[in-house]
Amino acid sequence: MTRRANELRPIKVKRRYTRTSPGSVLYQSGNTTVLCTASVQPDVPPWLAGKGKGWITAEYNMLPNSTSPRKRRERDGKVDGRTTEIQRLIARSLRAVADLVALGERLITVDCDVIEADGGTRTASITGGFIALVEAMNSIQKELPDPAKYPLLDSVAAISVGIVNGKPTLDLDYEQDYAATVDMNVVMTGGGRFVEIQGTGEEATFSDEDLDALLKLARRGIKDLTATQKDTLGKQWPF
Amino acid sequence: MTRRANELRPIKVKRRYTRTSPGSVLYQSGNTTVLCTASVQPDVPPWLAGKGKGWITAEYNMLPNSTSPRKRRERDGKVDGRTTEIQRLIARSLRAVADLVALGERLITVDCDVIEADGGTRTASITGGFIALVEAMNSIQKELPDPAKYPLLDSVAAISVGIVNGKPTLDLDYEQDYAATVDMNVVMTGGGRFVEIQGTGEEATFSDEDLDALLKLARRGIKDLTATQKDTLGKQWPF
Amino acid sequence: MTRRANELRPIKVKRRYTRTSPGSVLYQSGNTTVLCTASVQPDVPPWLAGKGKGWITAEYNMLPNSTSPRKRRERDGKVDGRTTEIQRLIARSLRAVADLVALGERLITVDCDVIEADGGTRTASITGGFIALVEAMNSIQKELPDPAKYPLLDSVAAISVGIVNGKPTLDLDYEQDYAATVDMNVVMTGGGRFVEIQGTGEEATFSDEDLDALLKLARRGIKDLTATQKDTLGKQWPF
Amino acid sequence: MTRRANELRPIKVKRRYTRTSPGSVLYQSGNTTVLCTASVQPDVPPWLAGKGKGWITAEYNMLPNSTSPRKRRERDGKVDGRTTEIQRLIARSLRAVADLVALGERLITVDCDVIEADGGTRTASITGGFIALVEAMNSIQKELPDPAKYPLLDSVAAISVGIVNGKPTLDLDYEQDYAATVDMNVVMTGGGRFVEIQGTGEEATFSDEDLDALLKLARRGIKDLTATQKDTLGKQWPF
Amino acid sequence: MTRRANELRPIKVKRRYTRTSPGSVLYQSGNTTVLCTASVQPDVPPWLAGKGKGWITAEYNMLPNSTSPRKRRERDGKVDGRTTEIQRLIARSLRAVADLVALGERLITVDCDVIEADGGTRTASITGGFIALVEAMNSIQKELPDPAKYPLLDSVAAISVGIVNGKPTLDLDYEQDYAATVDMNVVMTGGGRFVEIQGTGEEATFSDEDLDALLKLARRGIKDLTATQKDTLGKQWPF
Amino acid sequence: MTRRANELRPIKVKRRYTRTSPGSVLYQSGNTTVLCTASVQPDVPPWLAGKGKGWITAEYNMLPNSTSPRKRRERDGKVDGRTTEIQRLIARSLRAVADLVALGERLITVDCDVIEADGGTRTASITGGFIALVEAMNSIQKELPDPAKYPLLDSVAAISVGIVNGKPTLDLDYEQDYAATVDMNVVMTGGGRFVEIQGTGEEATFSDEDLDALLKLARRGIKDLTATQKDTLGKQWPF
Repeated sequence: MTRRANELRPIKVKRRYTRTSPGSVLYQSGNTTVLCTASVQPDVPPWLAGKGKGWITAEYNMLPNSTSPRKRRERDGKVDGRTTEIQRLIARSLRAVADLVALGERLITVDCDVIEADGGTRTASITGGFIALVEAMNSIQKELPDPAKYPLLDSVAAISVGIVNGKPTLDLDYEQDYAATVDMNVVMTGGGRFVEIQGTGEEATFSDEDLDALLKLARRGIKDLTATQKDTLGKQWPF
Repeated sequence: MTRRANELRPIKVKRRYTRTSPGSVLYQSGNTTVLCTASVQPDVPPWLAGKGKGWITAEYNMLPNSTSPRKRRERDGKVDGRTTEIQRLIARSLRAVADLVALGERLITVDCDVIEADGGTRTASITGGFIALVEAMNSIQKELPDPAKYPLLDSVAAISVGIVNGKPTLDLDYEQDYAATVDMNVVMTGGGRFVEIQGTGEEATFSDEDLDALLKLARRGIKDLTATQKDTLGKQWPF
Repeated sequence: MTRRANELRPIKVKRRYTRTSPGSVLYQSGNTTVLCTASVQPDVPPWLAGKGKGWITAEYNMLPNSTSPRKRRERDGKVDGRTTEIQRLIARSLRAVADLVALGERLITVDCDVIEADGGTRTASITGGFIALVEAMNSIQKELPDPAKYPLLDSVAAISVGIVNGKPTLDLDYEQDYAATVDMNVVMTGGGRFVEIQGTGEEATFSDEDLDALLKLARRGIKDLTATQKDTLGKQWPF
Repeated sequence: MTRRANELRPIKVKRRYTRTSPGSVLYQSGNTTVLCTASVQPDVPPWLAGKGKGWITAEYNMLPNSTSPRKRRERDGKVDGRTTEIQRLIARSLRAVADLVALGERLITVDCDVIEADGGTRTASITGGFIALVEAMNSIQKELPDPAKYPLLDSVAAISVGIVNGKPTLDLDYEQDYAATVDMNVVMTGGGRFVEIQGTGEEATFSDEDLDALLKLARRGIKDLTATQKDTLGKQWPF
Repeated sequence: MTRRANELRPIKVKRRYTRTSPGSVLYQSGNTTVLCTASVQPDVPPWLAGKGKGWITAEYNMLPNSTSPRKRRERDGKVDGRTTEIQRLIARSLRAVADLVALGERLITVDCDVIEADGGTRTASITGGFIALVEAMNSIQKELPDPAKYPLLDSVAAISVGIVNGKPTLDLDYEQDYAATVDMNVVMTGGGRFVEIQGTGEEATFSDEDLDALLKLARRGIKDLTATQKDTLGKQWPF
Repeated sequence: MTRRANELRPIKVKRRYTRTSPGSVLYQSGNTTVLCTASVQPDVPPWLAGKGKGWITAEYNMLPNSTSPRKRRERDGKVDGRTTEIQRLIARSLRAVADLVALGERLITVDCDVIEADGGTRTASITGGFIALVEAMNSIQKELPDPAKYPLLDSVAAISVGIVNGKPTLDLDYEQDYAATVDMNVVMTGGGRFVEIQGTGEEATFSDEDLDALLKLARRGIKDLTATQKDTLGKQWPF
């Protein structure tokens, strides 16, 4: 692979991939492929009922053969910690740019099913999931409490950065992620504000200078991803 | 839909859909889409260890947005009865044409993940799963106990038939299945022998004549499906 | 064993075996013994509420020492696939002869607990379960929406057939079932119509001629079972 | 019911009720019926392996229609507290009269399945379970480490007593148990020594005099139960 | 340890240990430490709703490092039999001295978390739990249906006794409990009446004389514990 | 509360809180109290066996009455997402300063049980857990592969920061955490390097300047916490 340390992997996006949900996006970044579908349900979870607000949740799942060797299905009542963390991150990221009051009392679920995994599945889920979310929002625009008040305030995208062989690197694939001493996922809005920063030393630590270099790379990647989201949605782009 | 009662829905098959498993087939029949992937594991389940035989198993799963409204994931430890029945049927059907001794002590798992559902997902899983199984078998041919002895004896395919509005009908889509008073799944070999017949009256019963008409239709459908399997595999076709 | 290939095993039925449920039948076929009890609950499952219809469900269970070696209880939240399939089959078979509207909004549960197993437990559960179901129906006849409209339209019984040592055989015991290359369960009404056909090649396949021979045997067995059901119920026989 | 406060209910015992386990006893006390079966497994639980001792365990279960209204099966992974307590009590009681070293490294499981419940199911399980245990012990006598050393040292039986309408009462049926302010289960050996005393005030308390009266009644009941066990086993009685 | 066979271990009690629940007691008996907290919830379990009565329940839990080697947390859906038995005993013991009608429709939960275990954790939970229960009762006294009617009728405490090296012994620590051939837990009211007696021979049996000696010791211990409870609560003592 | 925005809450630490584990620390920060205990087990998880490395894991749990209203115990097999995330964070943080090869093939488990919660329980668990970890390490120093090679390379501590009412604030208590628009947990070594940064906008976003201000505050807090850890451990301080 001759990709440079400050380059994203090539991205392909197919919208309307299935007919059965209002938002349906096949998002590919290099050899990572995630099917992001967004569905709308007419009521909110019990703890939110009657508060005049909607909710956005997310589920993340790797198909068994998205990775090799085959990964066991999470069917026995024990969803593993990594899955739980990832789907909470996706949902928080999407809610950070949402106006839940403008959404009205409904639940949007963004399902991210990984078809093929080569690193960066959680960030692909956020970036692709946002596109599916826009499709779902647009499909219910006429039924909103105030159709003139769009329930999304900005776009959101995510990318990984890390220190690989001592070098700050953008958009880690599986091998790079495995070799990285520091691994950071950054979620940002189209407007350039942070939503989440999750930086972790894997049996290692990092300095202030490392942090600065990583954030700079991430900002650059997010800018490109936002442009891709805008292109893909075309006239459906809400901002 | 102007399809006639004795016609199959249009079929599309993409082989090598993902890189992460030796068998990987996207099988579409009308609006039903199933991703069938087959992986090979170097050891058999404990109860079969040391018997000089391999094993073939299957898992079936509907993605949440493969259907509308969204279907809850089976993550809480309770795989429902329908899922269990279907994956047992898929596995039995594939084993019926296999020579498990020729396979040697290894486990092949055929995963059938439904991307979009419009009736006939279990029969699509068998027909598409067989293609993925052949790909997986071919990938390990040199490592078999006797490379000259192929571990599959015949092909296998499946189709649904039923009585819809009093009329025997081939290859039911979701609406037809819902309206059917009798519903039958037939699994047959390329050589024209039965592997499974599962006929069910849904709060209804059926006569000997009904049974004959349904089996005739099924036999016709299976013949066409076998031809499609052969075309798709081309030089990989083992028989 | 000197039973001929077209003969049923000897049958014994005890009605009113326990006092705690309106239907209670100890059904013995050779060395297979199943306790079938039917209870009535005054409301239907949530998904059926308010639709003016009743429901019939079934549960199947093998006592640990009904077989040797002892079978583990299904207490850990994982009811196995075989159990699930069998209890769904029993329930569908009983509903096929029921008029659920005539039953009114109540739930009948038919519990089939295997005391001793020697093959044919699922078909014994259907044949004996039908007798318990009649007892339960008769116990609530005065409370039905229209007491003149009996909620059962026909009787139902079930038998296994199979190909053992190349020979079509009726009513397989455990040893015959183990040796069979083809195994088929047939559920029929007293009136001679099919309710279910489940034929399976066990790592084998079967021809049209095999199918015909097996269905002929099954039809003969069902006729005898229906006569036994009628004798057992005497004046309680509803047709 | 004209039974006096110091009388046992009538008892019926059928030995060799099923052919599939070495110990198999249908034990009836009034309208309470328990099927007690004992099976032998050639190895002990992991924590006991290699210590030259055997183990005796028990499982208790009420069939759904043993009581009215129907009781839900304990299949969802949550065995209720009452069931757990009862099966621990049964197992401890049987072990109290066993010589586990004389048994050798094997596991005996005594399964107590309640066919019909009218109070006293746990004490019936112990009294009937002991008979099944003797049958199982006798079936393996030749394979014991020292065939001359019998692995049971005494017999054991159990009975309930309680204060009903202010009066000490023996062998409570369901209605009496429900009305009792104090409820006590007593497990004793044939030789007249205590194995377990479990006395409970149900939103009530009791005095020293109450305790004395209850223990006196229990001792009398156990004596009769021991005689019944001896009669039933005849020449199989080991002491 | 020079404690005599008829002496209690030294007791320390800290009230108001945490600010987050109305009753909060750190109860230490020798090296056994239990945190007993009582909380009040404004509604009763569904099965008690609308009956004008309250309810008292209890939960018991050992922290993983309360014992050595570390005990696994009960997080996988399988609360073990011992835990279930203990928390049922604690709750029954506390309810035996309560006037649930005077409590009104509310639920009190007494949580007993073992910080350090050296035998006698269940009896410490009852004795300490009663103090937390009084604190909780006092915190809601003004909101009771009839503030003049106190919802506790007497105090309750518990102690273990057993036969260790052939000698009746009071208040067994872990080592004594392990060595005991007979083990008995006695729960009594401040007024000297029995609430529960649970005596068990551990692969052993006991005589009438043994029983008398053990009950005498227990009565003596309970008297001292009641005095400690009264001292600790001071003006909060309700009787 | 008159604490300033750049001040830590008062801290109290009790070492050797229980006798049953080598590391046992009661850590209090304001009204947050966590019991951190560290135990050593002589073997590693299966996936690490034979690799000549040890492992450090952590479990986090809130006692039911550590918060008001009472929190349900996580006993039904579903550990919630928040718990999972926290215990993974604690374990990663401790491993980041460990030399797992120097530890040898053993497993250290750090249990963090929250006795009382008022915000900052995860950071208290890390800061207090490190002290317990040192105690455990010191207890096994002589048994290490190379007793001269200490298995910890630096100290680690953690603190929360956030934006409350528009103002960057150190060490958020529950009320501040609830009011914060941005919430960040920072884990750092005694040497001033980052281990983890987890910053989250709660339905909000944040700028580069916000990030700088928060990290500055966190660095100041960590310095004070490191000093407290050193004071507490006194001569046991390993660096």
